Amino acid sequence: MKAQRVDMFVSPMATPADTSGLQKLADSGKIRPDTLVALVGKTEGTGQHDDWGRVWADVALREWTAKFLDIPVADVAQRVIFVLSGGCPGVITPHIAAVTREMVDVTDSGDAKRLVVGRAGSEPMAPEEVGRMGQIQKVAEATHRAMADAGLTDPGDVHLAMVKVPGLTVASIRDAESRGETVVSHDLTFGPEGAGSYANDAAALGVALALGEVQRSSLSDQVVRRNWDLYSEVAMTSSGGEKRHGEVVVFGNGAGAQSELQIGHAVTKDFIDAEGVRSALRSAGVKFNGGLPDAEDLAKRLVHVFAKSVIPGSDQVRGNRITLLDDVDAYQIGKALGGMLIASVTGRTTNYVSGGERNSHQGPPGGNIVAAVVRSETS
Amino acid sequence: MKAQRVDMFVSPMATPADTSGLQKLADSGKIRPDTLVALVGKTEGTGQHDDWGRVWADVALREWTAKFLDIPVADVAQRVIFVLSGGCPGVITPHIAAVTREMVDVTDSGDAKRLVVGRAGSEPMAPEEVGRMGQIQKVAEATHRAMADAGLTDPGDVHLAMVKVPGLTVASIRDAESRGETVVSHDLTFGPEGAGSYANDAAALGVALALGEVQRSSLSDQVVRRNWDLYSEVAMTSSGGEKRHGEVVVFGNGAGAQSELQIGHAVTKDFIDAEGVRSALRSAGVKFNGGLPDAEDLAKRLVHVFAKSVIPGSDQVRGNRITLLDDVDAYQIGKALGGMLIASVTGRTTNYVSGGERNSHQGPPGGNIVAAVVRSETS
Amino acid sequence: MKAQRVDMFVSPMATPADTSGLQKLADSGKIRPDTLVALVGKTEGTGQHDDWGRVWADVALREWTAKFLDIPVADVAQRVIFVLSGGCPGVITPHIAAVTREMVDVTDSGDAKRLVVGRAGSEPMAPEEVGRMGQIQKVAEATHRAMADAGLTDPGDVHLAMVKVPGLTVASIRDAESRGETVVSHDLTFGPEGAGSYANDAAALGVALALGEVQRSSLSDQVVRRNWDLYSEVAMTSSGGEKRHGEVVVFGNGAGAQSELQIGHAVTKDFIDAEGVRSALRSAGVKFNGGLPDAEDLAKRLVHVFAKSVIPGSDQVRGNRITLLDDVDAYQIGKALGGMLIASVTGRTTNYVSGGERNSHQGPPGGNIVAAVVRSETS
Amino acid sequence: MKAQRVDMFVSPMATPADTSGLQKLADSGKIRPDTLVALVGKTEGTGQHDDWGRVWADVALREWTAKFLDIPVADVAQRVIFVLSGGCPGVITPHIAAVTREMVDVTDSGDAKRLVVGRAGSEPMAPEEVGRMGQIQKVAEATHRAMADAGLTDPGDVHLAMVKVPGLTVASIRDAESRGETVVSHDLTFGPEGAGSYANDAAALGVALALGEVQRSSLSDQVVRRNWDLYSEVAMTSSGGEKRHGEVVVFGNGAGAQSELQIGHAVTKDFIDAEGVRSALRSAGVKFNGGLPDAEDLAKRLVHVFAKSVIPGSDQVRGNRITLLDDVDAYQIGKALGGMLIASVTGRTTNYVSGGERNSHQGPPGGNIVAAVVRSETS
Repeated sequence: MKAQRVDMFVSPMATPADTSGLQKLADSGKIRPDTLVALVGKTEGTGQHDDWGRVWADVALREWTAKFLDIPVADVAQRVIFVLSGGCPGVITPHIAAVTREMVDVTDSGDAKRLVVGRAGSEPMAPEEVGRMGQIQKVAEATHRAMADAGLTDPGDVHLAMVKVPGLTVASIRDAESRGETVVSHDLTFGPEGAGSYANDAAALGVALALGEVQRSSLSDQVVRRNWDLYSEVAMTSSGGEKRHGEVVVFGNGAGAQSELQIGHAVTKDFIDAEGVRSALRSAGVKFNGGLPDAEDLAKRLVHVFAKSVIPGSDQVRGNRITLLDDVDAYQIGKALGGMLIASVTGRTTNYVSGGERNSHQGPPGGNIVAAVVRSETS
Repeated sequence: MKAQRVDMFVSPMATPADTSGLQKLADSGKIRPDTLVALVGKTEGTGQHDDWGRVWADVALREWTAKFLDIPVADVAQRVIFVLSGGCPGVITPHIAAVTREMVDVTDSGDAKRLVVGRAGSEPMAPEEVGRMGQIQKVAEATHRAMADAGLTDPGDVHLAMVKVPGLTVASIRDAESRGETVVSHDLTFGPEGAGSYANDAAALGVALALGEVQRSSLSDQVVRRNWDLYSEVAMTSSGGEKRHGEVVVFGNGAGAQSELQIGHAVTKDFIDAEGVRSALRSAGVKFNGGLPDAEDLAKRLVHVFAKSVIPGSDQVRGNRITLLDDVDAYQIGKALGGMLIASVTGRTTNYVSGGERNSHQGPPGGNIVAAVVRSETS
Repeated sequence: MKAQRVDMFVSPMATPADTSGLQKLADSGKIRPDTLVALVGKTEGTGQHDDWGRVWADVALREWTAKFLDIPVADVAQRVIFVLSGGCPGVITPHIAAVTREMVDVTDSGDAKRLVVGRAGSEPMAPEEVGRMGQIQKVAEATHRAMADAGLTDPGDVHLAMVKVPGLTVASIRDAESRGETVVSHDLTFGPEGAGSYANDAAALGVALALGEVQRSSLSDQVVRRNWDLYSEVAMTSSGGEKRHGEVVVFGNGAGAQSELQIGHAVTKDFIDAEGVRSALRSAGVKFNGGLPDAEDLAKRLVHVFAKSVIPGSDQVRGNRITLLDDVDAYQIGKALGGMLIASVTGRTTNYVSGGERNSHQGPPGGNIVAAVVRSETS
Repeated sequence: MKAQRVDMFVSPMATPADTSGLQKLADSGKIRPDTLVALVGKTEGTGQHDDWGRVWADVALREWTAKFLDIPVADVAQRVIFVLSGGCPGVITPHIAAVTREMVDVTDSGDAKRLVVGRAGSEPMAPEEVGRMGQIQKVAEATHRAMADAGLTDPGDVHLAMVKVPGLTVASIRDAESRGETVVSHDLTFGPEGAGSYANDAAALGVALALGEVQRSSLSDQVVRRNWDLYSEVAMTSSGGEKRHGEVVVFGNGAGAQSELQIGHAVTKDFIDAEGVRSALRSAGVKFNGGLPDAEDLAKRLVHVFAKSVIPGSDQVRGNRITLLDDVDAYQIGKALGGMLIASVTGRTTNYVSGGERNSHQGPPGGNIVAAVVRSETS
């Protein structure tokens, strides 16, 4: 019998094009051309839709991977999924997490569910599909294939679905409109009516559809960024103007998997809810002393945390007004605040935190998704 | 025998000129013209040196106070100290804390030290003194008088010294230079070489000098924002271009005081140190369950938290690089991050958090000051 | 026979609350309680929807006007129209232009058309009407009344219609939605899908409708910020969250008017078209030497220039790509660029320039409206 | 007899890494490996010290050039000088200007002076030299060698000296301080006390020293960004944290040169002085009709314009206050305004405009340098 063995290695990056951490992992044999399945990271730069830091990192990481796999750059996307989220404001260390997977023989797989990963690329998405049903359905379809690739059938075993989809650009809007099509927004930002937000949210609804968190009958172009009762509890999505396809990476715990790692997740109840972050650590298996995570577990067993930091749609947090919705730089500040919330609990800054949108179908209204990967105590 | 009875009332503000919370306190008799000694708050707006939100709040609050005290606006500063810190990025609710003090007769004062407050205005500070020894010495002198006004003689009983001093403006620089004087900086921001940062830091060194935290012999114009070994653990300072005098409010615990409140403080060890925030709550008397503050204590006994959020001077936090020093909006983000750190521990957003400067003589390198005011259990 | 005599006086402001220039005009008798009809100005501050500089200026100017007219502040709006546009990035001097009007007896009015002014307040506008037909129609109706007030019947005599309308706020959106209504956008900015832009553009279409520049049959909620073939050549509009009514001021040249001033306007062909600015000066009567406006005329006869600086919706200017649409601070930069275009032609910085929106129904696609008020040569 | 023949080709760039325009020039034979001497351009991105758009462009252009010249990337700097200025806010089209030079035989060189170019790299500059005499002297020395390379001996024939020098970074500051050295500023921005501004200004004084515009005896660390009477009228400088050497390109008109191009320059008198821009065009040989440049000359003979847009150190322009010095985004706005001033005169957006610093030794106080390259009428 064959089973997945998945591992994850987190390397800080010193510049957007810094591949030295990956090279060290390659040199040590921790990642191999036949085991590398995904690169997931935070890149420094503006975090805006034309963030050249992120674009450059994407180019540099693909070139490195092409050399590592000894294949043309154009073929890299068939072999390794890239999810790069731009912008590290505040206390988010730019980093790349390499995910490896190999199939190993097992005789007795035991009871414990362990980390598995699956990935899939979507069909190409036209600019007129961004933020609309076309994007939702193509992400849902890719999510199904990613689950199958992970060997997961129960949506309850999925703890994290990372998705990167195309957004809009001045050029792609012009392209769509020259063909008589409309686009969801002329605002290229991640603001409340921005194309980036619509793209991220269509992707989240695509995951929710695939996992049965929302019903197809409740979906239409009109509900995107309007009906906040529709959401996924495990979708973390981002978007970039340069992309043409969506990419989905699903993480879950699978019976029989031979990984040393396991994953868990939770949802914060509001924007300042540190306890929600602690719940995610608990869910993933971190031990607690009193109300706080065990320091040694944080240092030795916690591998990585993935979190969203979506700004609440209301100007009220626990009954008091905040002015974040009015801030001209709310997108940056909102993302930074999530980074602080996570870092203040994990005691480290190498956390994957994306966000800054106002309201989202990623997580319930006001709350955010946090997932944690932990090394098993018995491993 | 006479002793102080000090109280503190925190009111959210709906706009920069919203005095309705104060009016309600006045109407209920909680603040009286003869008891109001200080107004300390966070105002919404840009938080920059020309933050019109803060300036407008200052004008509106002074006008309200003048009417409340039935005195001319120009005389308000003699009676009530104003410390308004501009900018509420992220999860900081705009609010005003009214501090009252009355002298009451006591026969047996008991052992417990309770909250006392003292305040003093400084001599006028010329633009050429901003960020230099002139400002340091005038703040030190005012701090001495504020301690005396609080009835405190042991610097160890001082847990918080809030200071607001003049910064520089285009006009005041021109004034100084037209008289043949130089100014400490032509940069009006709170950036690393900004006049706002120099003003804040001279004020902090003034407090440190007054409290014996640094020696006079170690001070000179040259050490300001250069020798970070010199600092105060209780000084929270801010500055504004429109001011001509410094204002100092000292909070401490005094033997014999009849207040229902007590104050404590601590210093965080680095920028993501939630435990440092919890230490301040512990120091002030909040009960803890396991490692976390008791929820009912937070809801009922915690009156207010005051904190600085100074950006570290290094790009390393616990061994990993952050890009905050490079961020063009680091000033806003740095302040916002402090707001999140505090709110994630206190569970509320009405905290006084100022900051955003890079490095400061307010607190040790990398660390920040947190003070908490708590209602006594026996009260 | 009675005829209008209109005058205009431009005073720089040193702070948002600086009314000293107005006071000087009052002291000199240039403006009188019975002649002051409008205050039109640029205020310093962020220029964002929660620009406290603008809000404070509005409060301070209304208070000053109430004292000047010896009426309650609440009645000021019935007597004097306020059009304050926030944000003076770059080379735009904060200033206020006072417009006076009196009715004088004439026997022989001559042939020359001279400056007339009319104003009207609109019906209150609910948040759900902002950026939609409700706002369009109420502005159109007020524009008709303002024309009548100006004594103008031919739309061709209208050279400038300044309109200030309500925008949206977090609170007004909540209000609308709590009543089961929708709002045009959840984005509070002046971005491409921002409520501020929708409000400004509905106001522009309202003027266009009133002046016959567009037909009622071509208007609907759907065309706002979608069909750019619909526009006004004389509407300059702005919006603010604090307003509940629209205010319209119409400037034109009226037969028989006894003013010393006259007005003209033109439209630039694209974003860098200095010749379009010169055309506006020519239209208003400034003499030219070669291709350039006469320096003495600029210094002595040019009273004021009003201009929009709407960012083009395309990323191409005369065939070359610009990145302005991608700029996170395009709103500020776009406004600043208009300020430079005007100042580089007029040789002064006290010009009224508002803008920063991307695309608008104020002026044709890519072009902007410029109006100039000039002292008659024979006056 | 040998003489220079210099040409210049301007190509818009569609992304930071777009080398297609250069490739087209190469394919057409307009630039050849043995003639390419400099690449001067504006790159899109933030324009800040960590502008990844600029860094990526630098990497991509060097890689392209290495392939074009068939040499290792590390050797490119010996053969081709790169001056890339980051940030295209507003109406500045990202572009690259390729400068070619070849030595041709001449028998009778005629009287006309025509375009010549010379370039030189400087000695490496340590972080502690940035913004100080070390940087000044190394730039001066390189400027001398660049003049010699251009065949120019009379400083009056130099119309433009473009310099790119190292700035500071968090890492280079740490390096310097770890060796016991100080640095000129801890502020990494181009603000008034920012390291970027000091670097740019030391470079400008280096050019001024080399050209005799200032005397060595008047120079010291203390005068940099303090004594504005010291300046160059032809130095355009920029800086980047990633550089270790300075690079100087000198453009002038040389007797006997066989180029079809000629260069001229002028200095604006203040920030809104369009006439100063026109003077530069006149100086370079553009014909004028009345006061305006001939449209056909602009379209056909004007090859390129290089301009600085330094923000004035005063808040007064022609006697009226502007708030630019207070603007938090003055750096971007200031650069954008220069782009508009030039574009509104040249009628095109592909102009090289760098700037945003407040005050500079590049040009006299308040004024800015503009240089223009024009095709000779007889060519």
